[in-house]
Amino acid sequence: MENQTFFQQHNGQQVNREKQLLDKAEDARPSLHHKEIQPVSTVKLVRDDYYIHGWKAEFSETYERAIGKTYPRGSVFTLDFGEHTVGYLKLQLSPVGSPPDAPLCLKFKFGEMPVEIGESFSEYNGWLSSSWLQEETIYVDTLPQEYQLPRRYAFRYVQVEVVESSPKYDVCFDFISCTAVSSAEKDRYPVYLTDDKLKNMDNLSVKTLADCMQDVFEDGPKRDRRLWLGDLRLQALTNYWTFQQNDLVKRCLYLFAGVPNKEGRVAANVFTEPAVIPDDTYLFDYALFFVTSLVDYYEATSDIETLQELWPVARRQIELSEKQIDENGILKDQEGWWSFIDWKEGLNKQAASHAIFIYSVKKAISLTELLHNGETEWLHRLLHRLEQAVSFFWDAEQLFFVSGKERQVSWATQIWMVLAGVLKPDDSRELLKRLRKCQPAYSLSTPYMYHHFVEALLCSDMKQEAVEVLMEYWGGMMDEGADTFWELYKPQDASFSPYGSHIINSYCHAWSCTPAYFIRKYQL
Amino acid sequence: MENQTFFQQHNGQQVNREKQLLDKAEDARPSLHHKEIQPVSTVKLVRDDYYIHGWKAEFSETYERAIGKTYPRGSVFTLDFGEHTVGYLKLQLSPVGSPPDAPLCLKFKFGEMPVEIGESFSEYNGWLSSSWLQEETIYVDTLPQEYQLPRRYAFRYVQVEVVESSPKYDVCFDFISCTAVSSAEKDRYPVYLTDDKLKNMDNLSVKTLADCMQDVFEDGPKRDRRLWLGDLRLQALTNYWTFQQNDLVKRCLYLFAGVPNKEGRVAANVFTEPAVIPDDTYLFDYALFFVTSLVDYYEATSDIETLQELWPVARRQIELSEKQIDENGILKDQEGWWSFIDWKEGLNKQAASHAIFIYSVKKAISLTELLHNGETEWLHRLLHRLEQAVSFFWDAEQLFFVSGKERQVSWATQIWMVLAGVLKPDDSRELLKRLRKCQPAYSLSTPYMYHHFVEALLCSDMKQEAVEVLMEYWGGMMDEGADTFWELYKPQDASFSPYGSHIINSYCHAWSCTPAYFIRKYQL
Repeated sequence: MENQTFFQQHNGQQVNREKQLLDKAEDARPSLHHKEIQPVSTVKLVRDDYYIHGWKAEFSETYERAIGKTYPRGSVFTLDFGEHTVGYLKLQLSPVGSPPDAPLCLKFKFGEMPVEIGESFSEYNGWLSSSWLQEETIYVDTLPQEYQLPRRYAFRYVQVEVVESSPKYDVCFDFISCTAVSSAEKDRYPVYLTDDKLKNMDNLSVKTLADCMQDVFEDGPKRDRRLWLGDLRLQALTNYWTFQQNDLVKRCLYLFAGVPNKEGRVAANVFTEPAVIPDDTYLFDYALFFVTSLVDYYEATSDIETLQELWPVARRQIELSEKQIDENGILKDQEGWWSFIDWKEGLNKQAASHAIFIYSVKKAISLTELLHNGETEWLHRLLHRLEQAVSFFWDAEQLFFVSGKERQVSWATQIWMVLAGVLKPDDSRELLKRLRKCQPAYSLSTPYMYHHFVEALLCSDMKQEAVEVLMEYWGGMMDEGADTFWELYKPQDASFSPYGSHIINSYCHAWSCTPAYFIRKYQL
Repeated sequence: MENQTFFQQHNGQQVNREKQLLDKAEDARPSLHHKEIQPVSTVKLVRDDYYIHGWKAEFSETYERAIGKTYPRGSVFTLDFGEHTVGYLKLQLSPVGSPPDAPLCLKFKFGEMPVEIGESFSEYNGWLSSSWLQEETIYVDTLPQEYQLPRRYAFRYVQVEVVESSPKYDVCFDFISCTAVSSAEKDRYPVYLTDDKLKNMDNLSVKTLADCMQDVFEDGPKRDRRLWLGDLRLQALTNYWTFQQNDLVKRCLYLFAGVPNKEGRVAANVFTEPAVIPDDTYLFDYALFFVTSLVDYYEATSDIETLQELWPVARRQIELSEKQIDENGILKDQEGWWSFIDWKEGLNKQAASHAIFIYSVKKAISLTELLHNGETEWLHRLLHRLEQAVSFFWDAEQLFFVSGKERQVSWATQIWMVLAGVLKPDDSRELLKRLRKCQPAYSLSTPYMYHHFVEALLCSDMKQEAVEVLMEYWGGMMDEGADTFWELYKPQDASFSPYGSHIINSYCHAWSCTPAYFIRKYQL
C-alpha cells in the first residue's frame, strides 16, 4: 500500500494568518486540570489467544507491595494504572546498597493496550512513524531523585526496566504516579441508565472524550495528538451533551478559521505547538465539516457573534467545493487522499462526498436564513443542482447508490445519502434495511463511519437497529476490554490497522466518543 | 576477574557529618564558567589498524556545510568538535517539508575517542556499568525547537542519528553547539618551551586538568565524575603550578574531612550530588594522601587556619594506619582492594603501602613541627618503627624490595621506596637504574603510577631519564592522537583496560595531568 494514498504533501503551501481570529482562539484557550493517579498493581503480560491481540495482562501484585521492593539491574515489571491515563509519569528513585557509583539507566514503555507491552517495538514495521510508539530511555546521574519524564503519554500500562545500575547498588521506587491532565471539567448531563452495558458505554464514551480534551480537542492523546476537523465535529456534538465546554469548540473553530491557505480553504488538521500551524493536508469532506460544525455550535450556544464572524470562512468552503462539480452538478471524482470518508482501502469517495456536500449546503442554508445575509438564494440554487445530480449516482437495478466510474456500491455512500436526506424517510429506511441485508463488500471500517451509520439509523427512526449496532460495535470493544474507545475496531479482525501494524493504532480516539451523544440525545 | 577485587562494599556504613567542615567546603564552591563551542567538521569513522583501537576519524565536510543540509530519517553523521569538550549539547532543530506530523527521534552517541563512535555500545561486555557509555535517545514533539540535552557529556565526537521523523518531513540543524563548563580560570604560570612536543605536552596536561575542574576536582569528566583522594593529590600539585585555584583544593579537603566514617577514616572518594556522600570504599594509601595533600596545600598557600582545622583529620588517618602494623613495625598484608597503588592484576600492595606510610609520616612531621602541637615526638617514634621494618622488605640477593609472602618484585614497590626516601640518594639512583635494566614483570600500569616513577626519577636527580619517560609515555599518548591525557595507557597494548573493555576507559583523566607540574616545577 503506497503512502501517497494516505499522505498529502503541498510544497510551498501558503497560509493566510488571520491575527484577529487567532487571538480569539487564544482567548478561549482552556486551563488544564491536574490529577495525581497511582498505579493499582503490577501485571504480567501473558500470551493468550482468547484475548485481543493475543495478550492478557494478569494481576501480579499490588502497587504497595511493588514499591516496597528493591530492584537490581535487569529487573522488569509492568504497572497497571487501572484505567486509561493521559499525563506525566513521575517517580521517586532511591538507591539501595552503596552510594550510586554509576548512572541509573531506566527504560519505560507505555501501552494503552497489553499488546503494546507484550510485543517488541523493534519489530514494528508499520508505515506511520515509529516515533509514535511510546518509549523512553533515561539516565539518572544523581540519586535519590524525584524524576518526572518530560513528555506526555497516553497509557494504562507502563513497563519499567532497570537497564543498568551497578554491582554496588539496586534501586527502589518510593512512589510512582502520573500527573494526569485534561481540560475536561464536569459532566453536566449525566444520565441514569438501567442497562449496565449502556451505562458503561456512556461512561467510556465520556472518558474517551475527556482524555482527548487538552489544549484543543485532540484526535487521540497517544497519536496524532492534534486537532482534526472530522474528529472535532463528533467531539463537539458529544460535548454539547456532556461537558458543555463550548469555549473549547469555539477555540477550535477559530483555529481552523485563523490559518486557511491563500485560497481560503481550511486545513484538515491544525498543529498548535510551537505555534498555530495548519497541516498541508486538505480534505473535501473535512473542509465542509467546518460549515456543519459551525451550525452545530450555533445551535448549542446561540453565539451569534461567532456565527457572524466565522460565516465568511464557512461560505468560502462551499464556494471552493462548488468549483469541483461539473456542468451536470456532479462532484468530480479524484484519485488518492482527497476526501476522507473512511479508512477503507479501495473505497471510492465520490458519491459519499457528493452527499456530504448536500448535507453541508442544507446546514449552511439554515445559517443564512438566520443571518438574513441574502445568500440563501445562491445556496438554494447550488443545492438544487446537487440534488438534481443525485440520480446520476442511483443504480435502479441494484437499488443502491454507486460511486466512481467502477460504480462501486459501498456502505459509506448509502449512509451519507441517507444523512443528506436525498430520499424520502421511507425510502431511506428501505435503503438502510437493504444495506444490512445485502451487506455490500465495501463495508464500514472505523468507529467514525459507524457513527454515521448509527446517526443514519436514528434519523430514519430505526432506534432498535441503532442500539443493536451500538451494542455490537462499541459493546464489542467493551467485551474486548476497552478502557476508552478505539480509533479502529473490526469485530472480525482484531488486528486490523490501516497503518500496517495494530500497535500504532490509537486506543483512545476522539471519533469513537459518540455513544454518549446518541444515548443522551436520542434517549436510548 | 572477580568484581570483588575491584569493589568494596560496606553495608551499614556509618558516617559522621561534620557540619562546620562541610559549611567551609560549601563556602569554597567555585563558579562554573560557560563557553560556547561549535563543531569544526563532520568526520567519517574508518577502520584502520594503523590508528589506536583500529579507528580513524577522517574529515568529511566542514560544520558550515553540514548544518546547511537536510537530513531525512535514517541519516547518521558524526561531528568533530576539534578538541576535548565537557558540557551540554544544544541544537536548533527545524523541520523541512510539511509541518512535522510525528515526533522526531534522535539518537546521540558521544565519544572522547573515535573507537567510542566506531564500535557498537550494545556489544559492550566490560564489568563497569554500561550506563557510563555516553548515549541518549530523545523524542522531540514540537518543531522548530532549540533543544538542550539535559546531561553533561565529555567528548570530542558526537554521532547524531535521525532515527525517525516521518515521510512528510526531514530535519535541519540550524546550529549545534556545546556549552562547555569548567571552573578553571586562567593559567597563571604559562611556560615558554622551545621543544614543540614538550610544549604540546604541557598544553594537553593543562587542558586535562581544566576539563576535570568542575564543582570539585573530578577524576574524569566522562567517568567516574567524582572526587577521588588519589586523583585530587595530583590535580592539586598541578594546580599549584598552573591555575592556582587553591580554594578548590581547600573545598575538596574539607569535603573529605566533613564525612569520615565513625572511626574517623576518610573515604577514598566522595559524591557531592544530591548531597555530600562518602563512598563506602576506604583505601589505605588514599587515606594517607589526605595527610600529604594537606601538607602540599599548606606549602602552596601558607593557609595556617585550614592546616590547624584539618590537622586532627590528618592525624587520625595516621593513627588508623598505625593499627595495621605488626609488632615488628611491618604493615600487615591484606587481600583484595585495600590499597590502590596501581591498576595491576596480581600486584601485591604491602611494600608499596608501607613506603607510602613512611612517606606520609615524614610529611606529617613537617606539619607538626610547624604547628608546635607537641605531636612530633610520637610521629618520630612511629617513623622510626616503620623505617626499621624496611629491611624486612629488602631482598639482598635480588637487590630489590619485595612485597607479600610471595616476595613479589614490582616496579611500584621500588618507586614508592625511593619516594619514601628509605635509601641514600645514590642507592635510590642505583635502584632505579637496576629497575629500568631488569624490567621486573610487575610493571607500571597507569599514568598514575608513571607519575610516581617520574617523580622518583626527578627526586633522584635523574632528569634526563625523567624526560625520557615523559616523552615515551605521555608523548606516546600524544602520538596516538590524545586531546587530553588518558586514564589508562599501555604502549604495548593500546586496548588495555582493567574494566574488560577499552570503550569504558576515561580519556581525560585527572591522574594523568601532571606533566605540566613536572615541566614547570623541575624546569624541564
